[in-house]
Amino acid sequence: MSRYWCEYAWLGANDGTDGDAVKSGVAIEVVGDRIARVEVDVAVAPSGASILRGLTLPGMVNGHSHAFHRGLRGRTHGGTGSFWTWRDQMYVLANRLDPDSYRTLAVAVYAEMLQAGFTTVGEFHYLHHSPDGMPYENANEMSAALVEAASIAGIRITLLDTCYLQAGLAADAELNSTQRRFSDGTVENWTGRVSSASFESSTSRLAAAIHSVRAVPRDAIAEVARWASGNSTVLHAHVSEQPAENQQCHAVHGMTPTELLANQGALGPLFTAVHATHLTSHDLNGYAVSGSVCCICPTTERDLADGIGPTAEFRSTGVAMTIGTDSHAVIDPFEEIRAIELNQRLATLARGTHQPGELLTIATSIGARSLGWSDAGRIAVGALADLTSVSLDSVRLAGTDLDDVAAAVVFCATAADVHHVIVGGRVVVAAGHHHAIDVPGALRDSLRSLWS
Amino acid sequence: MSRYWCEYAWLGANDGTDGDAVKSGVAIEVVGDRIARVEVDVAVAPSGASILRGLTLPGMVNGHSHAFHRGLRGRTHGGTGSFWTWRDQMYVLANRLDPDSYRTLAVAVYAEMLQAGFTTVGEFHYLHHSPDGMPYENANEMSAALVEAASIAGIRITLLDTCYLQAGLAADAELNSTQRRFSDGTVENWTGRVSSASFESSTSRLAAAIHSVRAVPRDAIAEVARWASGNSTVLHAHVSEQPAENQQCHAVHGMTPTELLANQGALGPLFTAVHATHLTSHDLNGYAVSGSVCCICPTTERDLADGIGPTAEFRSTGVAMTIGTDSHAVIDPFEEIRAIELNQRLATLARGTHQPGELLTIATSIGARSLGWSDAGRIAVGALADLTSVSLDSVRLAGTDLDDVAAAVVFCATAADVHHVIVGGRVVVAAGHHHAIDVPGALRDSLRSLWS
Repeated sequence: MSRYWCEYAWLGANDGTDGDAVKSGVAIEVVGDRIARVEVDVAVAPSGASILRGLTLPGMVNGHSHAFHRGLRGRTHGGTGSFWTWRDQMYVLANRLDPDSYRTLAVAVYAEMLQAGFTTVGEFHYLHHSPDGMPYENANEMSAALVEAASIAGIRITLLDTCYLQAGLAADAELNSTQRRFSDGTVENWTGRVSSASFESSTSRLAAAIHSVRAVPRDAIAEVARWASGNSTVLHAHVSEQPAENQQCHAVHGMTPTELLANQGALGPLFTAVHATHLTSHDLNGYAVSGSVCCICPTTERDLADGIGPTAEFRSTGVAMTIGTDSHAVIDPFEEIRAIELNQRLATLARGTHQPGELLTIATSIGARSLGWSDAGRIAVGALADLTSVSLDSVRLAGTDLDDVAAAVVFCATAADVHHVIVGGRVVVAAGHHHAIDVPGALRDSLRSLWS
Repeated sequence: MSRYWCEYAWLGANDGTDGDAVKSGVAIEVVGDRIARVEVDVAVAPSGASILRGLTLPGMVNGHSHAFHRGLRGRTHGGTGSFWTWRDQMYVLANRLDPDSYRTLAVAVYAEMLQAGFTTVGEFHYLHHSPDGMPYENANEMSAALVEAASIAGIRITLLDTCYLQAGLAADAELNSTQRRFSDGTVENWTGRVSSASFESSTSRLAAAIHSVRAVPRDAIAEVARWASGNSTVLHAHVSEQPAENQQCHAVHGMTPTELLANQGALGPLFTAVHATHLTSHDLNGYAVSGSVCCICPTTERDLADGIGPTAEFRSTGVAMTIGTDSHAVIDPFEEIRAIELNQRLATLARGTHQPGELLTIATSIGARSLGWSDAGRIAVGALADLTSVSLDSVRLAGTDLDDVAAAVVFCATAADVHHVIVGGRVVVAAGHHHAIDVPGALRDSLRSLWS
């Protein structure tokens, strides 16, 4: 058993809307990987308890990651172009990776996420095969490398094994040399490969993803959805990140990407639509009625000029939201959640569409549910012991109102303010540093080798 | 004489558009407060030179500050409301300040700016008088407190003494109890007071500001502009931050705020319009033709739901831009400059309106010119020796492309990556810490005392 005493802790609220859920002097007991006891208003740290200064949150959840995109940070932001020209640069990097080099890079990226306060990651993984498109001897070797990387770094992972079968919606679209690495050829091959994988552990889990309506034909969408449903796993898909996808889908299928996914049985409480930037009101209603989740990735969506997602409409129609760092142009949970509200201010010229408590819920319990960890993302008895502690002592937060530390942290903290991170009861980050990995050094060594 | 050797330095370009202006191995000699020699491609640090790792920039310029607004950070971002309800909270804080407490707070705020990489600040100062509206015994005591604070912290300052005479454009608008502290009663009193002030030093300078067309009547605008012109100082004004200001100005004067300022003789190469968020094409043309500058404050404008400024139009019509942190919700020059480009991506769904070299020029040489320091903001012989060095070693920048460090720093660095700051040849920040001030401690002590 281990004991912690939090100067302040955000205990959330059942309805996900209460920003006034911060308690002071919160004593937490952990047995194994779960929280066994929570007591509030404990004035002095119990003997033997580790003291967590500042505000402790439930471990934050990164709902959407492509780990290797971290290698593009700082290299693709200048110049002009679009999502589509950016994708060309991304493919160059994708083509250089093998299981060993990807494991090495992913360890560093997941360690960066942990230092930023993320305790769980959803890895949307489609780089399955060898450079000539043939499966590795172990057809799940790339997936295994990512799950191992998460274990080495100490982050909880849901590996979203992604089906990717075609280059686009046009009938003559052929897979290019990089995309061949993504494709299993047929959806039967995808289900066969995924069914042979086994990644269950106390901190890892396998689930499914449909890359997009661009990359997966109509019948295959239904097949992947059936596989996920039959295996009771969550299911994710990229949806309507760019207007061009909507136009192409309309031209080929006569409906929106969301409508196509709905028709093929993908929507439901286990489904997460990633981005969901350009939706119709019928799309929104489909997500609301089905209980689906929408994962938005604000720092990536601004970097790639995708636009501002309809978060006010998600809120008004009752669609649950999560966040992801996606391309890792930025890895900072606070930048993501405050951008949800701040982008609305830019778009509507009004403040307060999304409140701090709602934004913290998005990054914690809803995020965890969207990745199949419904027993994480809360500081409560029985929940997985994933915790993120944020200092209130930096230049950014010094002097803020101690009666409203949740708002101060949501709007003013950065990843650099995270000092302590605990995953499944294990201290992974202390005093802002990963317990075992020199994160900048690991990133530098891995990326220099990949780009050399 | 002191010597520095920069691993990389951004030397800018004459046309302000060249992002490829980074040189490696840059040796800089400083004599007094100026740069006496610059040599590039020096492979090894000369003996006796201090080594500045990472990328060294000309000292960055914060074109628009209200120092006391730092006290609102973390306290005003939740909830709902607008710019106007936020302003009510700001007035509560304004009413608590006196020369001593404002000096103490401003020292901490200016030290925070220095640690973030700003070497010059434009302080848009309108809190002139005692709580009952009467002048202090020294009518410039509040201004003097701010100039002293800048000197104690070690930042270069242009004190923009701001004329504020009325509560609004409506004929019956009366100054409230806080606004009485801002007003000199008549423009003659303002010119008399300002003419009696003397703040010239090697690091401080007095200039003028018109609070806004809301707060200064038509004839007084002309009078302030004449004073600035007669004294060869720069002149700043808040312009069109909110659509409501435009509507009120139209109702009373039958023209836009920009047109009113132009008619009263305010525009010209020494004029800076702050915010300039909601402009007509005629307004834009007025700024372009007159050679005026527009200072945008992206992190404040998103916080206050002002909207996205017309930076693409500034660029296409040839209006020079600068940045400011204004309300200090964030103090981070990199957040401000990248938001100029990233907000355009959100608004237009295209990348690359503004290039990294342009954004760095905005934050350095144009910023300096807008505050009357045309000999600052460049790493060049004869320029003031103001330098900001950014580490490339953090998790944020590790592994970025050493052939394009300017883009990496613009899009990925934060204030936490600044390690060395030099103002007028004097090292003020080293290893990320102010040489004399515990900045978080100073902020905390000052703000707890003000809010208690």
